[in-house]
Amino acid sequence: MLTTFKAKATKLANGMQVETKSRNFTFLIDEPKSLGGTDIAMSPVEVLLGALGGCQAIVAAAFAKAHDITFEEFHTEIEGDIDLAGFMGKADVRVGFQEIRYTMHFKTNEPREKMEEFVAFIERTCPVGDSLQNGVKLVNAGLVLE
Amino acid sequence: MLTTFKAKATKLANGMQVETKSRNFTFLIDEPKSLGGTDIAMSPVEVLLGALGGCQAIVAAAFAKAHDITFEEFHTEIEGDIDLAGFMGKADVRVGFQEIRYTMHFKTNEPREKMEEFVAFIERTCPVGDSLQNGVKLVNAGLVLE
Repeated sequence: MLTTFKAKATKLANGMQVETKSRNFTFLIDEPKSLGGTDIAMSPVEVLLGALGGCQAIVAAAFAKAHDITFEEFHTEIEGDIDLAGFMGKADVRVGFQEIRYTMHFKTNEPREKMEEFVAFIERTCPVGDSLQNGVKLVNAGLVLE
Repeated sequence: MLTTFKAKATKLANGMQVETKSRNFTFLIDEPKSLGGTDIAMSPVEVLLGALGGCQAIVAAAFAKAHDITFEEFHTEIEGDIDLAGFMGKADVRVGFQEIRYTMHFKTNEPREKMEEFVAFIERTCPVGDSLQNGVKLVNAGLVLE
């Protein structure tokens, strides 16, 4: 059974500032000054990396018990490469990420082999990771001119 | 030339709460109570949809002048479908989004045909959209046990 998740992004009056809303939660998005923004918040591609990291952390938290794993601390470091010449229209390269890398850190006494299996489980269970790795059909559902 | 963007996600002490950081900016991620969270912030998949919307809004703002387009307001509504039975391990379906749809709204006096061309430009220029539509190579760069 499909669950539909929703968000709305509204351009603010000031340059590239955007307010993003889902349910009753909001956060801001902007660009650094080097890309023409006012640098009050993360850029969209940084938010995307954060969503992947948050997803990995939540899968780790949600499924540790079922895998008989105890850990005291978890963080994940994410980085990804973009050739901005594509976005600027200066080169015929893809505009999106060419690769995204992550390093997960656990404070735990569990053996490495068990943790490597748990990481493989996190990788295949994280909805954001699956969406990025396998791609998603994007559909233009309409253009409203007011 | 590649630019590398970075983010870090740290599980907080309380359930599924995660702090996400990129440069000097942070935001929180959580899950609704129905999925075992404490519902203090968006879930990762909602953040992902927000990143796509924010990306579309910034491309619209950044490239309007170059396309000789004037608009007073812009917002984009994003929605996407996930079969949570995959995440729960209860069905052999993909864990990520099966489809993401968006509707862009402009307050403008420009003719529809010109705006449809601009929307097509936004679609092919948004780095988050390209990353989702065409997929990204995800690389496990290491596991650190402390």
